[in-house]
Amino acid sequence: MPADGASAGYDLRHHGDREATAGLIDLAVNVRVPQPPRWLLERVAASLAGLAAYPDPARATAAVASRHGRPAREVLLTSGAAEAFVLLARALRPRRPVVVHPQFTEPEAALAAAGHRVGRAILSAADGFELDPAGVPDDADLVIIGNPTNPTAVLHPAARIAALAKPGRILVADEAFIDAIPGEAESLAARRDLPGLIVIRSLTKTWGLAGLRAGYLLAAADLVERLRAAQPLWSVSAPALAAAEACSEPRALAEAEHLARQAAVDREYLEQRLYALPGVDLPAVRPREPRARAPFVLVHTPGADKIRLRLRERGFALRRADTFPGLGPNWLRIAVRAPEVTDALIAAWPR
Amino acid sequence: MPADGASAGYDLRHHGDREATAGLIDLAVNVRVPQPPRWLLERVAASLAGLAAYPDPARATAAVASRHGRPAREVLLTSGAAEAFVLLARALRPRRPVVVHPQFTEPEAALAAAGHRVGRAILSAADGFELDPAGVPDDADLVIIGNPTNPTAVLHPAARIAALAKPGRILVADEAFIDAIPGEAESLAARRDLPGLIVIRSLTKTWGLAGLRAGYLLAAADLVERLRAAQPLWSVSAPALAAAEACSEPRALAEAEHLARQAAVDREYLEQRLYALPGVDLPAVRPREPRARAPFVLVHTPGADKIRLRLRERGFALRRADTFPGLGPNWLRIAVRAPEVTDALIAAWPR
Repeated sequence: MPADGASAGYDLRHHGDREATAGLIDLAVNVRVPQPPRWLLERVAASLAGLAAYPDPARATAAVASRHGRPAREVLLTSGAAEAFVLLARALRPRRPVVVHPQFTEPEAALAAAGHRVGRAILSAADGFELDPAGVPDDADLVIIGNPTNPTAVLHPAARIAALAKPGRILVADEAFIDAIPGEAESLAARRDLPGLIVIRSLTKTWGLAGLRAGYLLAAADLVERLRAAQPLWSVSAPALAAAEACSEPRALAEAEHLARQAAVDREYLEQRLYALPGVDLPAVRPREPRARAPFVLVHTPGADKIRLRLRERGFALRRADTFPGLGPNWLRIAVRAPEVTDALIAAWPR
Repeated sequence: MPADGASAGYDLRHHGDREATAGLIDLAVNVRVPQPPRWLLERVAASLAGLAAYPDPARATAAVASRHGRPAREVLLTSGAAEAFVLLARALRPRRPVVVHPQFTEPEAALAAAGHRVGRAILSAADGFELDPAGVPDDADLVIIGNPTNPTAVLHPAARIAALAKPGRILVADEAFIDAIPGEAESLAARRDLPGLIVIRSLTKTWGLAGLRAGYLLAAADLVERLRAAQPLWSVSAPALAAAEACSEPRALAEAEHLARQAAVDREYLEQRLYALPGVDLPAVRPREPRARAPFVLVHTPGADKIRLRLRERGFALRRADTFPGLGPNWLRIAVRAPEVTDALIAAWPR
């Protein structure tokens, strides 16, 4: 797992939404539902009546804080997790930021756009993208890791990530997908004891809210203040605040848990069907110690790019994975969907 | 009009929304309607059905570009004008930024938060806050001015502002209120010939959309690209994009023009009623050459702060203006409302 300062030619600004063009069955974007549930849409719609007032994050902040058992001063609502990455890049002054790859590319892109030279700690497919904390340089003063990680789907043990925390270092755990894991296993959201920990969360994937821009981060109060100072005034819209509040309530948490359990079942089905295909390997999936648990599957197969284009012709949008540092043209990411969608995909798979 | 680098003790982060607390008649916030019009609410509500998709600014950008007769590459949608100020502060590297005061304080606050040392060019009440381009330091490489200016309401002649443009300087005209001026007189939005010009616009005030975060800026394509690089991915939500598109259509422009003419009449009425009060002066209003034209009135009166507090007790929220550099405790800002609201305010005015 070498740290590598080179910003080799990966298109860090490529995202699945560019591939999921109209008319295709979307297995490229990791949003899990085609629309927010009705109770949530109603809450968002109700907020429109108050649009003339400037947004006030107090209630949403309190709801998120309560949901994670933390004081409100340790919560910062953001205009999606993407804004959180920009705030990190702008407000912090790391001398040696390191991103653990392969992973969502926006954190590195935001750091680079802010003028930082970003190191990479690349996990290896050969050992199922296992995290070896010793592989992160000792002097890295900003470390960013996804859990579960996009695109590998690997859920790292919380203790393994926590071991990366130390005084003088900011440790960012991007938990944008962790509400899709039953019990939010391995989350660090409630850990107030780890120095410099920032946990980033999203409402986008589970609730179908990509268009609304709703996310938040959890950190010690002084860190929250530093990040807030870099945030535009009134950054999170009133409809996004209404959604954040609604999605933090017990009813929403129970529904998310139900969805997470369903996703785990659907994921296993997709894994099994993919495994049966010739030439397909799922390096992050280990039968005896399942490590990949996010609602998407990372596939290794020779000629993945040709397969992807052939599947586009047959009506399916998959996510190319060669834009992720550490991966290449033989990788694909596939969203977990209902079994009938999986069946249709497998039937269309070029053999 | 001296340039002044001191950041004397003004609370730049104070805004009218803090004063317009529940139960008061709101003359503190400059949003002009209590709710967006129904046709606009319907457009925003319709966008909620597509919330699961990441926001795509292409259509809104094209609509805004068309409305101003500019190519789409010269338009950047922003999460309110407040985000535009942060993008300026983050993306540009001015050696000597200067803000023309008294004016909206967010541009200076955003520059300061990004580590810039901000100079002030303070216009004088004695000459009705007239802009003397010679008063801006020659070596200022970033100049920010509001037109019409909040809180003075002064509408500067476009030619006077244009004269501030020159190679090697970024000139920012904050036109957040100019759609409240009949004919959008003195706007620089269509001027593509001025070097380094950035025009910032808002949809918040005319359309009652403060909670939605919808604004945009117009500039040369290379400048737009520099600012876009500092913007979080997917920064403007899908509902805000829907609003931007709707508010750029001919029907909306015609309605804005109608509202602007109404506001001009309402403003004149408020001016006249205020003039009749003992001790009240409106330095930005000149009977023979009306300069103040925005939908709010800046009032000078001895003991303004006591008057403001007394009016709060009587149910009216006015905006304190002592937080604006160049003003002090004898200043108040009052939003233009319908004549019956003005009548009620005047009746309650302490004498």
